[in-house]
Amino acid sequence: MNHESSPAVKSPIIDYLEELHVRHASLRDGQVATYIPELAKANPDWFGICLVTTEGHVYEVGDARQEFTIQSISKPFVYGLALEDNTRAEVLKKIGVEPTGDAFNAISLESGTGRPRNPMINAGAIAAAGLVAGKLPATRWRRMLEMFSLYVGREVGLDKAVYESESTTGHRNRAIGHMLRNFDILTEPPEPVVDLYFKQCSVSVTCRDLGVMAATLANSGVNPLTGRQAIRGEYVESILSVMGSCGMYDYAGEWLYRVGMPAKSGVAGGVIAVLPGQLGIGVFSPPLDSRGNSVRGLAVCNDISRAFDLHLFNTPNVVKSVIRLKFSAAQVNSNRVRTPEESQALRTHGNRIQVLQLQGDLVLSTAEVVVFDLMNSLDDLDMVIIDFKHVISINESASRLFYHLLRKLNQRGKKVVLTNLTRVPPLGRYIRLKLKDQTDELFMSFDDTDMALEFCEDILLARELTIRSTEEVVEPVDYILLAGLDAEEVAIVRAMLERRKFQRGDVIVQSGTPAGEMYFIARGRASATIQQAHGAKKRLGTFSSGMVFGEMGVLEHAPRSAEVTADTEVECDLLKLEDFEKLGESHPHIKLTIMRNMALLLSRNLRKRNQEFSVFNY
Amino acid sequence: MNHESSPAVKSPIIDYLEELHVRHASLRDGQVATYIPELAKANPDWFGICLVTTEGHVYEVGDARQEFTIQSISKPFVYGLALEDNTRAEVLKKIGVEPTGDAFNAISLESGTGRPRNPMINAGAIAAAGLVAGKLPATRWRRMLEMFSLYVGREVGLDKAVYESESTTGHRNRAIGHMLRNFDILTEPPEPVVDLYFKQCSVSVTCRDLGVMAATLANSGVNPLTGRQAIRGEYVESILSVMGSCGMYDYAGEWLYRVGMPAKSGVAGGVIAVLPGQLGIGVFSPPLDSRGNSVRGLAVCNDISRAFDLHLFNTPNVVKSVIRLKFSAAQVNSNRVRTPEESQALRTHGNRIQVLQLQGDLVLSTAEVVVFDLMNSLDDLDMVIIDFKHVISINESASRLFYHLLRKLNQRGKKVVLTNLTRVPPLGRYIRLKLKDQTDELFMSFDDTDMALEFCEDILLARELTIRSTEEVVEPVDYILLAGLDAEEVAIVRAMLERRKFQRGDVIVQSGTPAGEMYFIARGRASATIQQAHGAKKRLGTFSSGMVFGEMGVLEHAPRSAEVTADTEVECDLLKLEDFEKLGESHPHIKLTIMRNMALLLSRNLRKRNQEFSVFNY
Repeated sequence: MNHESSPAVKSPIIDYLEELHVRHASLRDGQVATYIPELAKANPDWFGICLVTTEGHVYEVGDARQEFTIQSISKPFVYGLALEDNTRAEVLKKIGVEPTGDAFNAISLESGTGRPRNPMINAGAIAAAGLVAGKLPATRWRRMLEMFSLYVGREVGLDKAVYESESTTGHRNRAIGHMLRNFDILTEPPEPVVDLYFKQCSVSVTCRDLGVMAATLANSGVNPLTGRQAIRGEYVESILSVMGSCGMYDYAGEWLYRVGMPAKSGVAGGVIAVLPGQLGIGVFSPPLDSRGNSVRGLAVCNDISRAFDLHLFNTPNVVKSVIRLKFSAAQVNSNRVRTPEESQALRTHGNRIQVLQLQGDLVLSTAEVVVFDLMNSLDDLDMVIIDFKHVISINESASRLFYHLLRKLNQRGKKVVLTNLTRVPPLGRYIRLKLKDQTDELFMSFDDTDMALEFCEDILLARELTIRSTEEVVEPVDYILLAGLDAEEVAIVRAMLERRKFQRGDVIVQSGTPAGEMYFIARGRASATIQQAHGAKKRLGTFSSGMVFGEMGVLEHAPRSAEVTADTEVECDLLKLEDFEKLGESHPHIKLTIMRNMALLLSRNLRKRNQEFSVFNY
Repeated sequence: MNHESSPAVKSPIIDYLEELHVRHASLRDGQVATYIPELAKANPDWFGICLVTTEGHVYEVGDARQEFTIQSISKPFVYGLALEDNTRAEVLKKIGVEPTGDAFNAISLESGTGRPRNPMINAGAIAAAGLVAGKLPATRWRRMLEMFSLYVGREVGLDKAVYESESTTGHRNRAIGHMLRNFDILTEPPEPVVDLYFKQCSVSVTCRDLGVMAATLANSGVNPLTGRQAIRGEYVESILSVMGSCGMYDYAGEWLYRVGMPAKSGVAGGVIAVLPGQLGIGVFSPPLDSRGNSVRGLAVCNDISRAFDLHLFNTPNVVKSVIRLKFSAAQVNSNRVRTPEESQALRTHGNRIQVLQLQGDLVLSTAEVVVFDLMNSLDDLDMVIIDFKHVISINESASRLFYHLLRKLNQRGKKVVLTNLTRVPPLGRYIRLKLKDQTDELFMSFDDTDMALEFCEDILLARELTIRSTEEVVEPVDYILLAGLDAEEVAIVRAMLERRKFQRGDVIVQSGTPAGEMYFIARGRASATIQQAHGAKKRLGTFSSGMVFGEMGVLEHAPRSAEVTADTEVECDLLKLEDFEKLGESHPHIKLTIMRNMALLLSRNLRKRNQEFSVFNY
């Protein structure tokens, strides 16, 4: 997560931001705020732009590391803390969410209730500060700082000079505090709350910090650089809503129309804008327009939005790509090695097993695509495997929809297998919650799709064929590689074979060792696996009685590329490489037959793999 | 596109909507509108809900087919037509976009200019009707009807009774019309424009129609049932913006906070809500609240939004899944069959060729992921293949970003190959526009990634190895399948071979014919292809001099599964099946060696395919 862009060659995004910086640096409109004396010291030429993606890539140009005070940009964040510390209903009782055409420092209380119209005006922000939990003012202040630090990804602090300046001149805000106390919006002495508000406005940040804070809101409350959660995701939509409707004061309609991103400005010259799910923008330039918004800040947001098509309502369609792969067991099979007869049965009946691999975020509209697909193919399938391996997240409504889908499939007698459920913890939790007293088994769960596919294939094959039990001992005459040999020839080979017995879990073949023999399975099942980079074992194939393994190593004279382990008690007949070689001299016809069988097996496997490959469609 | 849900088993989404319908049917608040006498005839029990996804799946319950008049819901759509017929700047000169706290029929003109504050109040809507192109009123009306029909996906008409009722009682709207004329917002006699406005309000629709109209807005202006474009995508964001800020009158802030979808209501009881990129909702229930919004309509939108987590700011993260596959030529190779020496070189140096397969919608934030990835691996690669096969759309800013990326790669001497460019026409257009006078070749383009990969592999191999020219004739002693035979044995085989010559394009092996021989290539190149379901040919493999093809058919005694065609002039040596069989009797050692070579070749190919398979990670 925590990677930043410092490539040798400049990113074209940096090029664009630099161009934008040059273009707007010459903009000389606006005045540095003077109503707090300390703010008037700002250099009107300071100008930084920072864009941060939800992947945590940071693009900054200009004075992106210059510190300044956050001012009103603190309001949505403290509002979020108030939501977390109380409940949405409690907060709504004290602070409205309707925009007002008034200026930022208007008192704007609802007649009668005295409720501030929204949390972006000072009255609403002071009320929000009053809702932050903590007995002592110092506790509340510490909690605010901790919150800001989580959003920013570093320890932030107070700009003392600005704070003192605010405190000295903040008569109007003190008046608001007392008015809120009068209406019982504040239920305690207002002075400490107003002081807390002065402090929150005087938190020192940089333009880069603003970009990261905005990106954290875009990323459902998780700081994309640190991976730490700054606010619970459920409240992010509320923060963005008040920013969307009230963040730019009486400019809200025009802002939504032109820029189309929830935004907030501060009188020190900062602006943040958020494109949910995608990115956050921070701009810093002290000169303000008559509404108290940074002149260059607005111009930059406007230009970035236009140039990059960032309007909220210009959102990518997430629906179309939720199904990453869809195939049946007639097309792709598990790595359980099958006999020709079994393979034929799978080709014929395998379409009764459908596999859907999903990807991306599962929300109502993406989950609906899956539900629609399955509800419309109920008659065509008996078993369905849903693979969540590439799913990034699932929300509650998608979990509910999947739960009801599973019930419907169940009622219709369909077997459902879910794989990689660990990728979607909320789904597991939802289902467990629903099933707590019921014993009906809605679905099976497997770690991976390969195993799930084998499980479903086994059910299908048991229905279509008489399957040999793994307990039954296969005689050499029935070994696949010995097909076509007459009894006398089999006896010759048999004399060369050496019987070995393995317990379940025994390693039969060790990866990296020389390939000195091939193994005919007389009884039981064994699996070849490789160790993957990230430590997990991946199954290459499972072999059962009558089959052979280790023949590729013998053929290639190469060290073992995989480990083979006994899945059950296994009896094997070993044919040593040297004996096999000798056969060429003593009984060339036998060796030729075995070699031909081997080539045939490889040819069939390769053909199968080629067919499966085409499903993946790279 | 045009499929609707009528599965044998009810979708869980229908279950939920029915539950919601039952729950809210008992809601008895509100009054049917009476200000137009004809509207007062509506049955207060009528109640329909319809949800339509951007995939074109329709979920409807209750009185979803009852006709009623569209009323104010027409406003955003006519505003869209006005934008198309003029320009955004011209329309903004006549109609503002700021919300007003006033009621729906307030006059709300800006002091001085007389510009209506927004297109959702009657004054703004009448001004918008005045901006619809057409000399004659009848022409304008016909164009409006055509527009509504595109949105709805069927021919819509006028409810004459309501129209006449509106016309008889519409004094206030006539007053507005004259006021607009007074301020030159209307520059022609206002009566016909006001009449047009009465007509647009009297268009007869159903709740299902509303759902489809909303889904069309959610789907960037393309009706998801018919696939026809109802409005240019660039104006959809403007329509949704005015719906978002002004669609619910003085309830805008609360609506955005609670429901979080741009919406519009009409006094006949209709409501639409739009979740961009995902779905549209239509509700119909005549009783209205004091603000003129359908009581059940609001309640249903509120509940659906909560239950389904549909809030606009709760949007899925599109960024994380833009790269569908990423691999290098050290992991996956083209279907050009390589010699062991070449394969080894690709394993060693293939990581200099990177393949990125993209998917979904390419917008700034998704394109940035690709740019970031490549800008940070510049030193690790020489060639990059970007595959657009699974891309759904690309917008202008992503096109620009890709163009600049290509320039940067070019400057650094990287070879860039783009495949499946037909999936992203705007990218091609953008680049052509930029390069019109320049001759520098920014990139190569191939139809598919397999061919692109071969092209890049060839460059790599030419650098790393001395490659045999296809013109050079290979002697049988160098045929891969004859490796290990001594001169005398080669001579024996050679005597069995039959030389054939093919011209470029000749079919050497016909699919479905019996496999009577295998082919050793002495000179030239030939490719095996299969015909795919959708008609296109897919390459299975390309063989060059020294290699063999047709051996799998011979081995399996199966009919030819692929067609083999000469890519160049080709000289082949044919070994007939019967001769090969005879070799087993006359010279078993020769046959054994060939068989072993064959098995070895198959084994290597299978191993390679297995490795490639793991990249696809199903």
